[in-house]
Amino acid sequence: MADAGREVRLWARRPEVAAAVNERRSNPDYLAGIVLPALLTATTDAAIALDKADAVVFAVPSQTLRANLVLWRDLLPPDSTLVSLAKGVELGTLLRMSEVICEVARVPAQRVAVVSGPNLVREIAAEEPTATVIACSDHDRAVALQQACTTGYFRSYTNTDVIGCELGGAGKNVIALACGIATGMGFGDNTTASLITRGLAEIARLGVALGADPLTFAGLAGLGDLVATCSSPLSRNRTFGEHLGRGESLAKAEAANHGQVAEGVKSCLSICQLAARHGVEVPIADAVRRVCHEGLSAAEMGKELISRAPRPE
Amino acid sequence: MADAGREVRLWARRPEVAAAVNERRSNPDYLAGIVLPALLTATTDAAIALDKADAVVFAVPSQTLRANLVLWRDLLPPDSTLVSLAKGVELGTLLRMSEVICEVARVPAQRVAVVSGPNLVREIAAEEPTATVIACSDHDRAVALQQACTTGYFRSYTNTDVIGCELGGAGKNVIALACGIATGMGFGDNTTASLITRGLAEIARLGVALGADPLTFAGLAGLGDLVATCSSPLSRNRTFGEHLGRGESLAKAEAANHGQVAEGVKSCLSICQLAARHGVEVPIADAVRRVCHEGLSAAEMGKELISRAPRPE
Repeated sequence: MADAGREVRLWARRPEVAAAVNERRSNPDYLAGIVLPALLTATTDAAIALDKADAVVFAVPSQTLRANLVLWRDLLPPDSTLVSLAKGVELGTLLRMSEVICEVARVPAQRVAVVSGPNLVREIAAEEPTATVIACSDHDRAVALQQACTTGYFRSYTNTDVIGCELGGAGKNVIALACGIATGMGFGDNTTASLITRGLAEIARLGVALGADPLTFAGLAGLGDLVATCSSPLSRNRTFGEHLGRGESLAKAEAANHGQVAEGVKSCLSICQLAARHGVEVPIADAVRRVCHEGLSAAEMGKELISRAPRPE
Repeated sequence: MADAGREVRLWARRPEVAAAVNERRSNPDYLAGIVLPALLTATTDAAIALDKADAVVFAVPSQTLRANLVLWRDLLPPDSTLVSLAKGVELGTLLRMSEVICEVARVPAQRVAVVSGPNLVREIAAEEPTATVIACSDHDRAVALQQACTTGYFRSYTNTDVIGCELGGAGKNVIALACGIATGMGFGDNTTASLITRGLAEIARLGVALGADPLTFAGLAGLGDLVATCSSPLSRNRTFGEHLGRGESLAKAEAANHGQVAEGVKSCLSICQLAARHGVEVPIADAVRRVCHEGLSAAEMGKELISRAPRPE
């Protein structure tokens, strides 16, 4: 957005991050080597960051969005567009991130937009060409955001299917875990491509049951984001799955990932619960859930998935 | 099919290939290191290969299918299912491969099936898990083929959308060239995933104009095959594109590819012609065509694609 000529105020939790952004135009912990644009400033004061903003972009992990929003809700400018970059389904409530925003900020759904696509952050910071989807039930808000972020390396498409875009983003981490498991077992591009395709089919089935447009899943927020996440060595979920595929325990994979579980390890639980509630079969997500949480071995997972009854596509 | 318990007779052009298959269960030029199944035999005599076959599987390059079929058509067993593995649109006639088979073999469309999916041959030979689509307008024939090729590592789905499966296969080589060009220019997984997604969207638009079901493109013969082809270092089209992306000429890329142009270099011509005939926009295929045949530079191609007018997805 700063490269598109907009003034951007970043809220940072740590003062040293805000100082680095303002004084040295850098964010060494997260974007080492990148010179940040001059139109980007940072503050640790949410009131300053939010003052008179046209759009407020939430870029926090999905399971912490609610707690953060509670602190910010009274500062949100009236009629600002609230934009979610978080990808997930809230554990316990099974709410999508836009639903969490509506509930906590007490705003109608038309004020909430979601952005999703093949958007690995380091590559965007390096100004490599990519594309994304801006979804909002209010088309005019989506178009305003599209104009606010179009640059010579970033192309955005509008969509009114918020549910589809959010489900694509939440499901991809689980499928990336499955692809990592297959890679860890020594399998190649056919297996990965099959898991991506059948994984997208099950996310789409679930999304359609929730009211999404099936074609959204063939787009940048479905397929596009999924392919980038499943292909990239920068993807934490895929890398985490590789450890599991080599027969390591969840604890050992966690230790190798700086003591954190990958997002998909949590999302597979909420996605399987959501699927069960709507009577939708999600065999890959369910297999990932059992590998992560019930001790199913990667080899058993592979055997199960390949030997399901033959059927039409 | 041999691993699924069927007797398979391979027709080979060269006697030394047939001898290697029969005497040493190997095909050193194409599948070095793989032990072939005992139910697979080879012959250079098409009459022996075709005698009483239930299904005849054509695995020849798309632009040579017609010439080969002319030699075989009088030997095809009555009521056998004719199966195309060839991916392309015939130059000049703009016919799909199943249409070439119907025309040359003089059979109704219901006798022709196509197989398409993420099926890189070396990985299948190594028995790595994968999946595919068997498409035939006659569902019973598709089911018979499904039963004839189901093994513990190979899972197939039936589909009646022959047009969609064929367009997916023909289009993927062109998009793989585009991904190779981007990779050769130094871009990463966001760019590749964006090209895959928007490339699939334009193949789907063209397919729908020809009568295909849009959802086929989200399946194994669309997305699945495309992802495998665009991701794999085994893909000749992607590798060929990388040369062009580094600024090398078509001639130099050809020289690096054992003196052959990649399939997509030809298919981009027939696909753009087909699209023009049906009034469908295919910006990525058209850009690839101009890089290959009109001297457009890779850098200009990138600039053009990213700066098209913003629009809904």
